Amino acid sequence: MWSELEPVGRHPRSGGYRRFAWADADLECRTWFVANAAERDLDVEADGNGNLWAWWGDPEAGNALVTGSHLDSVPDGGAFDGPLGVVSAFAALDVLRARGFTPSRPVAIVAFSDEEGARFGVACGGSRLMTGELDADRGRALTDAEGVTMAEAMAAAGHDPAGVGTDPERLSRLGQFVELHVEQGRVPLTTPDGARVWGLDGYGAPIGLASMIWPHGRWRFDFAGRADHAGTTALGDRDDPMIRYADAVLAARAAAERHTAVATFGKVSVHPNGVNAIPSLVQAWLDARGSDEERVRATVADVSGHTGSRTSPQPAVEESWTPAVRFDDALRDVVATALKPRFGAVPVLPTGAGHDAGILAAAGVPAAMLFVRNPTGVSHSPAESADRADCLSGVEALADVLEALG
Amino acid sequence: MWSELEPVGRHPRSGGYRRFAWADADLECRTWFVANAAERDLDVEADGNGNLWAWWGDPEAGNALVTGSHLDSVPDGGAFDGPLGVVSAFAALDVLRARGFTPSRPVAIVAFSDEEGARFGVACGGSRLMTGELDADRGRALTDAEGVTMAEAMAAAGHDPAGVGTDPERLSRLGQFVELHVEQGRVPLTTPDGARVWGLDGYGAPIGLASMIWPHGRWRFDFAGRADHAGTTALGDRDDPMIRYADAVLAARAAAERHTAVATFGKVSVHPNGVNAIPSLVQAWLDARGSDEERVRATVADVSGHTGSRTSPQPAVEESWTPAVRFDDALRDVVATALKPRFGAVPVLPTGAGHDAGILAAAGVPAAMLFVRNPTGVSHSPAESADRADCLSGVEALADVLEALG
Repeated sequence: MWSELEPVGRHPRSGGYRRFAWADADLECRTWFVANAAERDLDVEADGNGNLWAWWGDPEAGNALVTGSHLDSVPDGGAFDGPLGVVSAFAALDVLRARGFTPSRPVAIVAFSDEEGARFGVACGGSRLMTGELDADRGRALTDAEGVTMAEAMAAAGHDPAGVGTDPERLSRLGQFVELHVEQGRVPLTTPDGARVWGLDGYGAPIGLASMIWPHGRWRFDFAGRADHAGTTALGDRDDPMIRYADAVLAARAAAERHTAVATFGKVSVHPNGVNAIPSLVQAWLDARGSDEERVRATVADVSGHTGSRTSPQPAVEESWTPAVRFDDALRDVVATALKPRFGAVPVLPTGAGHDAGILAAAGVPAAMLFVRNPTGVSHSPAESADRADCLSGVEALADVLEALG
Repeated sequence: MWSELEPVGRHPRSGGYRRFAWADADLECRTWFVANAAERDLDVEADGNGNLWAWWGDPEAGNALVTGSHLDSVPDGGAFDGPLGVVSAFAALDVLRARGFTPSRPVAIVAFSDEEGARFGVACGGSRLMTGELDADRGRALTDAEGVTMAEAMAAAGHDPAGVGTDPERLSRLGQFVELHVEQGRVPLTTPDGARVWGLDGYGAPIGLASMIWPHGRWRFDFAGRADHAGTTALGDRDDPMIRYADAVLAARAAAERHTAVATFGKVSVHPNGVNAIPSLVQAWLDARGSDEERVRATVADVSGHTGSRTSPQPAVEESWTPAVRFDDALRDVVATALKPRFGAVPVLPTGAGHDAGILAAAGVPAAMLFVRNPTGVSHSPAESADRADCLSGVEALADVLEALG
């Protein structure tokens, strides 16, 4: 399965993946999903929001045990973020069947649409639309960098956008959701003997369990200045918004350190973006996250003084906000118990990344997440990695969990 | 003439001009040039590099008196930079004919190709190719943002790129070149009574004369880091090149102040440019200029420490360097004398902007530049402006100069 997916949407120069919702590479991944489900005699359905479901058992029976993740990527993302959870779901099902296990309730493997939000700017689009977290009309009207709406992109890919929207009937069928995902970043952990270590690698564990998803948001900063000739305009005559943007980048880093949060300017759009032109506008997007809302908001507030024009500062525009999500304690206890025989007491850790599991949890579906060790913590990058042995441990772990729950 | 050109390539939202070499708006401007030459019974030829020449008199006679400028623009540029010089040339010819003047030698009006370099990255492309300053093969192979080569763009516009290259025969026909241009920026000037003022507006003069073009260059800075997830990567685990870019922006401003130069980061390209991704690479271009080479190089050197990766800094890549150009003193004296009756003693000022007149001067053609007052100094922007009365003074001034020289 892994080698089939490997070339799909991989950029030859960067080595990173470019699997954007409803574009060619994404459609190839969807075809791969359907083929793998068919090989296992699973019934596949695409819901109105484009999420793919492969059913082992009767979807209508209710109280389904669902596992899976997503297949799309950020620009030049890694191979693991998303696909590892879907490939491991199919592989775990194979393991369960090899063990002769028959579930007492329906089991489904899901691939959520557009989890990264790389194309239309809203992360977890497929699950947010399903739960109603994202309004159907707003979702359909989201545009990509070329001005193509999500509805147009869906239609071009042969998916009728009329079906987009809240899907309470499908949501009510879901009993529990377990998402396996590559570890992202290295959080501080304390080992049983009291040592302070970084991430699963420092801890020496191939598998971890999620406690919570940090609250996080995206803010747009518009630094407005006055376009002018770079060679002829005296320094004192300039209103150069790039200078204020640079101040803001450094202010964001300092604020994140001060408030024990993380804050990143990763996306910038400069107008007119000419070598010999002082910009008229620098637009930049700040991603900020932390273990509680106060830290995040304090960080953003410390940067906000820099936006707008020199004479009339404006607040940053909040483009999205996702509150903290605490995963279901009771479910995590059952999962931890299922993992114990093979993996001992697995470490429990928070994550700064948003996930479909978080969207479902916020909508009332008991959810859990398994993390597979990522030695460097690097993700959203071609350098994202996990050892083959750890990935195989992930499959065993997921099979153990599904067996215990199923 | 002005109202015919006004709508061509003007962006409806920004109000700025987008007239890029060999693209539709540029071709419309070329058609306008040919029509205006035809109305005046001037013979038009496009040379091998695409520069347009309208002849009053016999091109082969030699020792031609040439005036004109360019018609292309920077992205979202103003209406005056370039076109004012071409429109004024036609209008000055009309004035000369109305005065009953007959030149004793050939007079030509020129519109140089691709002066701004907005599309292919090399400024003054048309004059540089003609003088050999830019190699023909290198020029033809330059690509725009879509990967289209200059040769392909020329061919698509019906111009045979085989003719591109040094044109010594044409160059030898040129006796003198006078370019009229809108003032750009406000330089410090001293009035006859010793007051220190800024620009022609501060001086109270509608017309100025160029002394020199500052040496200037473009440098590419590659800030390399490690792509990573913006939400999950601990601050201490980051190698975020945006931080080093921000440092460089502020360092460039401080260095320019220290060395009495100007330095601008106006163009940035971020990879992968995702909201939730720490960039792997920030590429940024520095434009630096000053009254002598030492100031410029000292400014760039002060910023260069920030480039490359955190562990292996690299020097900035010099993409272009144009030495200082001093305009011909003898010609300027003749021009100043010609202007005296109507305008008195006109101020003489340097400019930080490159011009085709500078390229010709460097190639040995005696050249002079007239500046028309720009009250704010703003250029390369929709806000670029000149009063109608000053533009008409420019036409009179140019006519007086051509009459004195012709």
